Amino acid sequence: MSTFREILCPGCGHAIQTYLNPVPTVDVIIEYAGGIVLISRKNPPFGWALPGGFVDYGETVEAAAVREAREETNLDLGGLKMFSVYSDPARDPRQHTITIVFVAVGTGTLRGGDDAASARVFDPGRLPDDMAFDHSRIIEDYRAWKDGHVRGFAKK
Amino acid sequence: MSTFREILCPGCGHAIQTYLNPVPTVDVIIEYAGGIVLISRKNPPFGWALPGGFVDYGETVEAAAVREAREETNLDLGGLKMFSVYSDPARDPRQHTITIVFVAVGTGTLRGGDDAASARVFDPGRLPDDMAFDHSRIIEDYRAWKDGHVRGFAKK
Repeated sequence: MSTFREILCPGCGHAIQTYLNPVPTVDVIIEYAGGIVLISRKNPPFGWALPGGFVDYGETVEAAAVREAREETNLDLGGLKMFSVYSDPARDPRQHTITIVFVAVGTGTLRGGDDAASARVFDPGRLPDDMAFDHSRIIEDYRAWKDGHVRGFAKK
Repeated sequence: MSTFREILCPGCGHAIQTYLNPVPTVDVIIEYAGGIVLISRKNPPFGWALPGGFVDYGETVEAAAVREAREETNLDLGGLKMFSVYSDPARDPRQHTITIVFVAVGTGTLRGGDDAASARVFDPGRLPDDMAFDHSRIIEDYRAWKDGHVRGFAKK
């Protein structure tokens, strides 16, 4: 089964069918200064979120994580590790996205940029009320994992 | 940075720019009858491969893994766990795909279907020469993980 979407030619109005796929994104839980880094989003959906964004065509997910962290927080990442994947079609109000979530240690000076109006360090146990996407759930899973509970990923 | 691709309107030849994103897929390492299941691909790229395929729009990656396993091997999956994510732009000769790989235990009667010309059980240490995509590398990582080595995913 494949899903199609229809776009209309702006030249003649002809309906053109193209494939419709979920869109891959990355998000990074950056451990920094005793907490984790959240950014205040400059564009909808508004609220606080993990640094992250769309994976470019031709780019690995690891490279996308490093690039987005750099663009949005000015931080470099050490010890980058995959954490989990979230793909609920309702997790992003704009369209169906699949996010590959990483955990890393941030180095450098924190400064919001690009899609981030600002960037700040939070205690992962005390998040702001206005969290975007499913990021409060992701951070809840991260806290459980830090406490020794198993994430979805295969473990011996 | 976003990447665009140009498609031509079949009605008037007008060039239309659309976003170009890597395409999400799933693959499943199905443990069954003392080995793992590979399928012989009916469509290019030919060769033996892990059961898997494209994630549908509106479908979770877990649901896609269960559906593809069912379609291509007739098996049901138990104990589904995420294993890792592979996103090298060169891993699929057709286009840039990002695969989320699962490990699961297969139950039922193995029978090739859909995109699979046939389905067979292999010793993961003795794979056929003509493996498609980066699946021999994925299975190598799986074997290392089974031997107690750590995969890319975060571990305490």
